Amino acid sequence: MLINVPETVVADALRGMAAAHPELVVDVANRVVVRRDAPVAGKVALLSGGGSGHEPLHGGFVGPGMLDAACPGEVFTSPVPDQMVRAAAAVDSGSGVLFVVKNYTGDVLNFRMAAELAEDEGVQVASVLVDDDVAVRDSTFTAGRRGTGATLFVEKIAGAAAEEGMPLERVEAVARRVVASSRSFGVALSACSTPAKGGPTFDLPPGELELGVGIHGEPGRERRAMMTAHEIADVAVDAVLSDLQPQLPVLVLVNGMGATPLLELYGFGAEVRRVLDERGVTVARTLVGNYVTSLDMAGASVTLCQVDGELLRLWDAPVATPGLRWGR
Amino acid sequence: MLINVPETVVADALRGMAAAHPELVVDVANRVVVRRDAPVAGKVALLSGGGSGHEPLHGGFVGPGMLDAACPGEVFTSPVPDQMVRAAAAVDSGSGVLFVVKNYTGDVLNFRMAAELAEDEGVQVASVLVDDDVAVRDSTFTAGRRGTGATLFVEKIAGAAAEEGMPLERVEAVARRVVASSRSFGVALSACSTPAKGGPTFDLPPGELELGVGIHGEPGRERRAMMTAHEIADVAVDAVLSDLQPQLPVLVLVNGMGATPLLELYGFGAEVRRVLDERGVTVARTLVGNYVTSLDMAGASVTLCQVDGELLRLWDAPVATPGLRWGR
Repeated sequence: MLINVPETVVADALRGMAAAHPELVVDVANRVVVRRDAPVAGKVALLSGGGSGHEPLHGGFVGPGMLDAACPGEVFTSPVPDQMVRAAAAVDSGSGVLFVVKNYTGDVLNFRMAAELAEDEGVQVASVLVDDDVAVRDSTFTAGRRGTGATLFVEKIAGAAAEEGMPLERVEAVARRVVASSRSFGVALSACSTPAKGGPTFDLPPGELELGVGIHGEPGRERRAMMTAHEIADVAVDAVLSDLQPQLPVLVLVNGMGATPLLELYGFGAEVRRVLDERGVTVARTLVGNYVTSLDMAGASVTLCQVDGELLRLWDAPVATPGLRWGR
Repeated sequence: MLINVPETVVADALRGMAAAHPELVVDVANRVVVRRDAPVAGKVALLSGGGSGHEPLHGGFVGPGMLDAACPGEVFTSPVPDQMVRAAAAVDSGSGVLFVVKNYTGDVLNFRMAAELAEDEGVQVASVLVDDDVAVRDSTFTAGRRGTGATLFVEKIAGAAAEEGMPLERVEAVARRVVASSRSFGVALSACSTPAKGGPTFDLPPGELELGVGIHGEPGRERRAMMTAHEIADVAVDAVLSDLQPQLPVLVLVNGMGATPLLELYGFGAEVRRVLDERGVTVARTLVGNYVTSLDMAGASVTLCQVDGELLRLWDAPVATPGLRWGR
């Protein structure tokens, strides 16, 4: 691994973000990343966070049109309430703060405690829980569905709603609509290695894959002998469609887990599109790349989000973050 | 690997690019990627290409402010002159075409032949050779220095010059200045696997690294037991500085080889910045991410480009491609 020692991996990365992104305020000691112009007067603030190891999520999604702040925890470990309270105070303009929380037990508890503490300090807080992964219900880390790729859709679309000046309850409602409209399914072709462990976090022999894997390498539905991109796309898209059954055009995220080359991701994206075409699903927009990663795991996930005109407009709105950037 | 069969990897990826990027014209059969509004009247066109497996380079850098066209070869194999001639004809507005060529024997020969053929068809062609890798002089694939990370700087900065309306000889001169001002050094922490081979292309035992590796896994200067990010940054930056000796502020590219997590890349970026600070080099801009990759190789490279006011202005100019995007 390209690290110093496991104990400083998150702090080292934050020092690197600070060096590369003068448009962000990176508080390395307190582990808070904030857009430099925060608080933005009259704007609802979006705050998210979670365990590190999923970059660019969440720190790479801080900036105009997306998050106002992110709180990185240790690798695959929830951040603590102190970080969130500090971040909320830094970004609240008086218009309130929306917490975007991925559905893992630790994150849920810590963000809930942070919401109470922040409200004690006079910050109005709303929270939205992202639970898009159709692979499993309940797991070691989660009650209900896990939160994965849809987090990008929620942060982008609700971020645009906030940037437009919508009040907290409308931004929250938009975020909930995105959650309700999104489903994901992931596949691992290799395990990931955490710095603390120094090696693979689970055992996946070469020539096998894990269907329905979580973003921390949690077990999925089934382990199988290696399949083609064609076959994997069939399984992943059908798993999503059996749960979502979209009536509207969809946003498609073909997300790399970290170590799968972009060359392969685009090829997989072609197969995802083929399945959607065969199933009669209309594609509005497609994003291919490494956005919600699992360190050095090989594999990919597919997230679909069905969008009406308003959600599509908010998706298309300008965004300027290290990890996602378009428009003005 | 997340593929169908090795024979269709490049075509599958191009189908995926076509599906994800309606702003590009992707000719899958002829393997040419062109910006949709080409030819742009009165504008010099930039054309590049090379073996696949380095994505987003080059196809992901097609768009306003960067390349007009890219020609992907088979994995780690030069494209053929027919592709380049076809692409040149598609993007030439009558103002001429600049070929950006990485210094590998096959690419050099094929682009040279393509330039002759295109000129026979009435297209004015200039070529610039990128040879930034300080690790080795002459290798299996190259006479002189290899072309690696600086290709991004050349394509971005010369692309902006063309977008501003500079004539061919000035765009070419800008490109040559960027080449002369740029040096790189790469490190592999694992070998990469090509689809055709189905496994690692060279032997790098766990716990060792290759200093000075090329972007196809070519041997570097030295193989050593694993080093810290701190130590690797010392070696990589000093190798670049001993050759470049910048007198001006530098652009810094901290480039992932493919399988190194962004979390680690940012940490490595912090160490790169530390070394530059210690050596008294002023940093103008920093870019951290996977831009000039080697399939699933773990590792990173450092590229520095010293910039005067004009080159910095052109770097900062708007760009809108799948792989690099900012400004308007």
